[in-house]
Amino acid sequence: MSNDYTQMWKELGLDLTAHDALLQVLGKGYQDIFLSQSDRPTGMDYFNFVMSEVHGLRIKELVDGKKEGHKIVGSYCVFVPEEIVRAADATLVGLCAGADFATEEVEKVLPRNTCALIKSAFGFKLGKVCPYLESTDMIVGENTCDGKKKSYEVLDTLVPNLYVMDLPQMKSTEGRAVLRAEYDKFKKAIEDLTGVTIDAPRLKKGIEIVNNKRKAVHRLSELRKADPVPISGLDALLINQVFFYDDPTRFTDSVNKICDELEVRVREGKGVRPKGSPRMLLSGCPMAVPNWKLPWVIETSGAVIVGEESCVGERGTRNLTDDSAATMDELMEAIVDRYFKIDCAVFTPNADRLEHVKEMSAAYKADGVIHYGLQFCQPYQIESLPVEKALENSGVPTLRVDTDYSMEDVEQIKTRVEAFVERIKMSACSACRCS
Amino acid sequence: MSNDYTQMWKELGLDLTAHDALLQVLGKGYQDIFLSQSDRPTGMDYFNFVMSEVHGLRIKELVDGKKEGHKIVGSYCVFVPEEIVRAADATLVGLCAGADFATEEVEKVLPRNTCALIKSAFGFKLGKVCPYLESTDMIVGENTCDGKKKSYEVLDTLVPNLYVMDLPQMKSTEGRAVLRAEYDKFKKAIEDLTGVTIDAPRLKKGIEIVNNKRKAVHRLSELRKADPVPISGLDALLINQVFFYDDPTRFTDSVNKICDELEVRVREGKGVRPKGSPRMLLSGCPMAVPNWKLPWVIETSGAVIVGEESCVGERGTRNLTDDSAATMDELMEAIVDRYFKIDCAVFTPNADRLEHVKEMSAAYKADGVIHYGLQFCQPYQIESLPVEKALENSGVPTLRVDTDYSMEDVEQIKTRVEAFVERIKMSACSACRCS
Repeated sequence: MSNDYTQMWKELGLDLTAHDALLQVLGKGYQDIFLSQSDRPTGMDYFNFVMSEVHGLRIKELVDGKKEGHKIVGSYCVFVPEEIVRAADATLVGLCAGADFATEEVEKVLPRNTCALIKSAFGFKLGKVCPYLESTDMIVGENTCDGKKKSYEVLDTLVPNLYVMDLPQMKSTEGRAVLRAEYDKFKKAIEDLTGVTIDAPRLKKGIEIVNNKRKAVHRLSELRKADPVPISGLDALLINQVFFYDDPTRFTDSVNKICDELEVRVREGKGVRPKGSPRMLLSGCPMAVPNWKLPWVIETSGAVIVGEESCVGERGTRNLTDDSAATMDELMEAIVDRYFKIDCAVFTPNADRLEHVKEMSAAYKADGVIHYGLQFCQPYQIESLPVEKALENSGVPTLRVDTDYSMEDVEQIKTRVEAFVERIKMSACSACRCS
Repeated sequence: MSNDYTQMWKELGLDLTAHDALLQVLGKGYQDIFLSQSDRPTGMDYFNFVMSEVHGLRIKELVDGKKEGHKIVGSYCVFVPEEIVRAADATLVGLCAGADFATEEVEKVLPRNTCALIKSAFGFKLGKVCPYLESTDMIVGENTCDGKKKSYEVLDTLVPNLYVMDLPQMKSTEGRAVLRAEYDKFKKAIEDLTGVTIDAPRLKKGIEIVNNKRKAVHRLSELRKADPVPISGLDALLINQVFFYDDPTRFTDSVNKICDELEVRVREGKGVRPKGSPRMLLSGCPMAVPNWKLPWVIETSGAVIVGEESCVGERGTRNLTDDSAATMDELMEAIVDRYFKIDCAVFTPNADRLEHVKEMSAAYKADGVIHYGLQFCQPYQIESLPVEKALENSGVPTLRVDTDYSMEDVEQIKTRVEAFVERIKMSACSACRCS
């Protein structure tokens, strides 16, 4: 880290010893998993820097921004419309966490069989190690899965600024009305928080900023369709993770810059893996920093990840918000239209997601799909069985991996992933009759 | 069983061998757990008979009724309004199941860490052992918890007649609108199924029949407030379970008859346990037939159960539907009003439930509360921690028991329950200073 941020962390109320320990683990993990990769695009230097300053410079920016009146809104879900936050000159930051922390404390307030993502979020609060969470002016929870919905009732006793947004369970007319009403309420809450009245020009500007982030990520995704693939899945995942933390405009510029570089690579037929390497699509639960276990296992098992059907990935970023309308009401409708398309497994039925996995698998020329289910995440775990069945029936090899944030099962997962990669190689061989 | 129903079961498509095995286990369990109790009210003879004919005579009645045009609607939840079903001369039967069955088959279509109640319902379908399910003309699923919501997508591939009802997650204006819209759709679906147009007089009649069932159960509950308690918790639970299967009018008469008998007992100061026995309130997840494990453990550990804060119990039956209105619209509103009060843990926030547990604990003079959580039932498991905390803080000893349908943990639970009963006895002793 470039500076000493101890005073800032202290003022945010962090537990400095615990926080130091976390940073050390994070730094070591980043070194081992990311910096050890070969042939990384030079544009990744920016993201290395972002990660090295993820609790430092970025927090300083946010804290400095607060002094100038820019509020910080924390969120645990891609259903929280960043456009509205941005329209009020506030910043939306992701609060999902990807590492076990203070588990003993967490299990005093949540059942043991709660998914790792929720437990981790609570651990970062109870362990006082998340400067994002501690700097928020508002934390937004949302009624997606049972685990989160009911945990927010507990979180509400731990933080002073929780705002809960309801979500529908079905994509019906009434369900859409629930979402519209909630987004209207949320807009009002953001106006109350910031003192800014969100009018159509402001909202259009908010939409533009967020759409630009998405467009940059779409450009990156497009480039990953090449064979050889010009960027590793780990690096692409990292970019998708930084999506939730960074200044949006700077993020957009940095992604576009790396895309310029990747375009040259693609033109020159250069990649991070040899042409013909087994290509994997990751599908399922989101992966928050520093949850890199499964992608790391996959990419050290002879395969390369070409896409993420995930909230931290294409499920979260695929659709743009239409900004062509002129009135607030129309723009709000456009926002509802955009978010109502998100095919999270909390919806029932959720046939769109299955179609999307198939589409992605074809578009990214994936040789196989690895479905990542967080243990105790019932929506994705239950949905993973029909997803697997449908993919296998259409000739796409699929592996279901259910895991948590512990490292205990790494070897076991590695064995399964390696066998899966072998299966794909064998089937490719038998198809080309080279054997 | 009084007759040979083999032909009927065959025609319903049951697996006769598996079904015989189930009935044998059920019969043995009933003998050991219920018939072995002492001082049972003679009015329980009716319920013994019902249980002995639960897959026999009752099914024959339903099948005969079908021949006369009375449709059968199956349900897994107390949010399915029986009034509407009854208004169309159809019968609502509960399909929740309380025993593991065909688990290996179930785990091919659902994750292992799905709650026992859902797995059991699937096991009864896949194992072809539930004559209720097989005789239904319509099966109603509802979007309560993630487990059920997502499992219905799978059930839909296993049965030809699934109807899914959406539910809100918050008790907001929009949430109420969702429920009203769903009940209107459901009424239409029932009309389509039965060919009966539900008008106000029909709906009023339906409400009256169902309210009468509830009133009879309220009368029973009231009598359990006496010390000594005139009926065991096991027998009272059984009555609450039969609530979901029996002909409603006959059920009402039988409960009222047993209440007449219990009134005499109370007047004479007679009970099933000595005066002053530790009184327990059960709170939490529903218990479907033959899930009698925990109540049996409690009542063979020196305590007596005086109330059930459960869907199979007071949460399911406590409120009446107002039948004073004259128009269909008003009656439908009254039904929505009634069901919208149900304080299932799927709602957030759900403060009403906590208040209700406290109220019940006081009203039934409970010495302690045993919270029953089904493993992997996230809504009740997460809610159990604040419930325990609030109860203990207001001086009500509370024990949380998380379990499933297996018998493996019986001894472990027994040890914990016995220690809990001892704690209560000790605290009573120290309060009266007799030691």
